[in-house]
Amino acid sequence: MLIARYESEQEAGYGIVTDEKVFEYIGDPFDPQSARQGELIGTLDEVRLLAPVMPGKILAIGKNYAAHAAEFGGDVPAEPLVFMKPPSAVINPGDEIEILPEMGRVDYEAELVVVIGRRGRFVKVENALDHVLGYTCANDVTERDYQKADGQWTRAKGFDTFCPLGPWINTDLDPFDVVVSLRLNGEVKQSASTANMVFDVPHLIAHLSRVMTLEPGDIIMTGTPEGVGRITPGDEVEVEVEGIGVLKNHVVLRQA
Amino acid sequence: MLIARYESEQEAGYGIVTDEKVFEYIGDPFDPQSARQGELIGTLDEVRLLAPVMPGKILAIGKNYAAHAAEFGGDVPAEPLVFMKPPSAVINPGDEIEILPEMGRVDYEAELVVVIGRRGRFVKVENALDHVLGYTCANDVTERDYQKADGQWTRAKGFDTFCPLGPWINTDLDPFDVVVSLRLNGEVKQSASTANMVFDVPHLIAHLSRVMTLEPGDIIMTGTPEGVGRITPGDEVEVEVEGIGVLKNHVVLRQA
Repeated sequence: MLIARYESEQEAGYGIVTDEKVFEYIGDPFDPQSARQGELIGTLDEVRLLAPVMPGKILAIGKNYAAHAAEFGGDVPAEPLVFMKPPSAVINPGDEIEILPEMGRVDYEAELVVVIGRRGRFVKVENALDHVLGYTCANDVTERDYQKADGQWTRAKGFDTFCPLGPWINTDLDPFDVVVSLRLNGEVKQSASTANMVFDVPHLIAHLSRVMTLEPGDIIMTGTPEGVGRITPGDEVEVEVEGIGVLKNHVVLRQA
Repeated sequence: MLIARYESEQEAGYGIVTDEKVFEYIGDPFDPQSARQGELIGTLDEVRLLAPVMPGKILAIGKNYAAHAAEFGGDVPAEPLVFMKPPSAVINPGDEIEILPEMGRVDYEAELVVVIGRRGRFVKVENALDHVLGYTCANDVTERDYQKADGQWTRAKGFDTFCPLGPWINTDLDPFDVVVSLRLNGEVKQSASTANMVFDVPHLIAHLSRVMTLEPGDIIMTGTPEGVGRITPGDEVEVEVEGIGVLKNHVVLRQA
């Protein structure tokens, strides 16, 4: 099932996406077993999709593809390298990525995202997928000068609009061998299978949940493959994960 | 006014603390101007206090006291060094700080905490205090081996129970020259004035809000002074900020 969130007059609604149409999702969005399909909201052309979840916390993994770690002259870490992005950085499919005048090089990073559906701590690898609601796409937008200057990555990766998320959650995806790709103005820049991850999804969940309680709605950004590069105002950036869909955003210069 | 949160049968309640007693807080907890004092809930001995806010995001500042930066052989950064802790790390006054068997050295870090009351982005230094609801205390508990191994501090500072917060919010504190101190089993280990901060509260708010939108309930941990040191199971740790109060927690070994 594909679970989306959409803009409505009262509050954000959850929807089920089928055949390019969005239907009302009736039930607990973190328990797809309970879901029933309600009335037609509209076609994907008509409905404004929102980020499919507003995460309580955004956990992210650095250097989780060896070929990407090598791009920055780094080795693969012995354990998953954890960092966070603030929830305020999340934007919807179609929203604009904002670059500020004082920024240096800003990069795209296409990623497969795990959406947590069930609370857990000290989760074992063999039970880890029981805690997953489904999967979506994200762009881990990153300013490289601040990343280098600060050492800590929070500022570089934490600007408002630096976490495009969506377009929906696929609850049926098998995450072990799907292609994560990125197109910049239509040209393919990243394309690699999640089979190349250093730490796969169950190992990431086990590692993170040894540190902290994972809650429904938390997300794990699983790292980006090789081929990262710069975005500048006017660019169109598309993240695609095979079996999920396409997350498209444009880049603008924001005069603050 | 001192704003607390307390455990009640239905849901967490907001309270006003006066003369060692907790009274019901009637009104919007992020707008103290609107507050009225309701009925007596109980004395501080009787009421179980909760962390005074459940933060949407926990922003924190590294190396914000020169003498502490020097403890780790580091210089003071040219701009505030931003990192984050996950909301799942928050515990209440009196809750236990849990050390896991595989951990190395775990340290206390006493800090003054800013609680955001009003949403803001691109906030100017001269208007920054308009966005503050008040101030509380926190202990930025940190595992040093992971901090060094990972480079990123998220794991080292992100364990469940690694963010004791409280005991309440003082909405009337002047944050520019108050003593932040820490007692370990009754012995003073840290004691320094916030006048020694490298970047003061208005500059931290201006810097952070240039990066991201600050929301009501977000908190900013303003850094720890010199004198950090190890905690082990059985220890009693007290963070005190002059004009606020004492945040006391015990340390236990958790067998997961």
